Amino acid sequence: MAKTKIDRNVSIYPMPVVLAGAMTGGKPNFLAIGWITRVNYQPPMVAISLSKDHFTSMGIREHKEFSVNFPSLDLLPQTDYCGLVSGRDRDKSRIFTLFHGDLQHAPMIQECPLAFSCTLVNIVELPSNDLFIGEIAEAYAEETCLTRGAPDIAKMAPFTLTMPDNVYWKIGGQAGKAWDAGRALTK
Amino acid sequence: MAKTKIDRNVSIYPMPVVLAGAMTGGKPNFLAIGWITRVNYQPPMVAISLSKDHFTSMGIREHKEFSVNFPSLDLLPQTDYCGLVSGRDRDKSRIFTLFHGDLQHAPMIQECPLAFSCTLVNIVELPSNDLFIGEIAEAYAEETCLTRGAPDIAKMAPFTLTMPDNVYWKIGGQAGKAWDAGRALTK
Repeated sequence: MAKTKIDRNVSIYPMPVVLAGAMTGGKPNFLAIGWITRVNYQPPMVAISLSKDHFTSMGIREHKEFSVNFPSLDLLPQTDYCGLVSGRDRDKSRIFTLFHGDLQHAPMIQECPLAFSCTLVNIVELPSNDLFIGEIAEAYAEETCLTRGAPDIAKMAPFTLTMPDNVYWKIGGQAGKAWDAGRALTK
Repeated sequence: MAKTKIDRNVSIYPMPVVLAGAMTGGKPNFLAIGWITRVNYQPPMVAISLSKDHFTSMGIREHKEFSVNFPSLDLLPQTDYCGLVSGRDRDKSRIFTLFHGDLQHAPMIQECPLAFSCTLVNIVELPSNDLFIGEIAEAYAEETCLTRGAPDIAKMAPFTLTMPDNVYWKIGGQAGKAWDAGRALTK
């Protein structure tokens, strides 16, 4: 095995792809992002990182609410479009059918198999990005995408992203069972 | 499409799987995590979320350095093992061949196709987790896993995780080109 030093601006392999939603300038707006992770177990919290100039950031700062939507493969062109154009220039409020839960400023996407709404908990200001930490208020899933009451990735058919090659990837087959595949090594 | 409300403690679909490394109690220790994302573009920063009682957290707090390592499919049992047992009870310093870059307290894994070392920038204290934000100091990749100088996911063969079904997933085939697949919709 031969290690070579590469550019330190490396990506995560792979990144999930979601559409973050907010009410900006009085309209629902959506942004494609791959910089997202769960950050707290109880209460459930998520963090999304947006570069400082994003139009969506204004809406999150104003209303302190946002949504996270998981597009399936059939929404790949629309998702990519949301990453190509800014809400400053284009109205992205009519690409999808929208719905709301209890939060009035967290527009969710009906066509996405899984969506959740968040209340803003904290903004961590970083040099070129703002990290928005939100508590997951409500989660909605497509009934046909559930198995035993929980979202089933094989039914959801989400996709992932790698950079700098800028490729979207399908989810592959099962590779093993977590908290189990390493059990033999515990003996 | 029929949406149904589900438990708000939902996961990200899918989560990347990495091994976070630190020097804890004088020894290299590794933890399997799926709560990770890039958070800042320039300088490059990453965030990892660990529940408050994790042994690895002590080492990151003490030395203000940690590593992130991307295991390939052939390391799945060892990766899962690192998630099953705590460094409090088991010595995880000899599972892998280790190497260091400039940082002395960010042990990296030779067997992983991609690894990077981080200097701690900030700890965001959340109710049940600590979010460690680190600047990526150095990145190392296996030469055979590069294409045009950047890591190639098809050569790296990493895997992802879903919960609560606790399944590891392979990376599937290409689904489209990012910042391109939605171009037709811009017209």
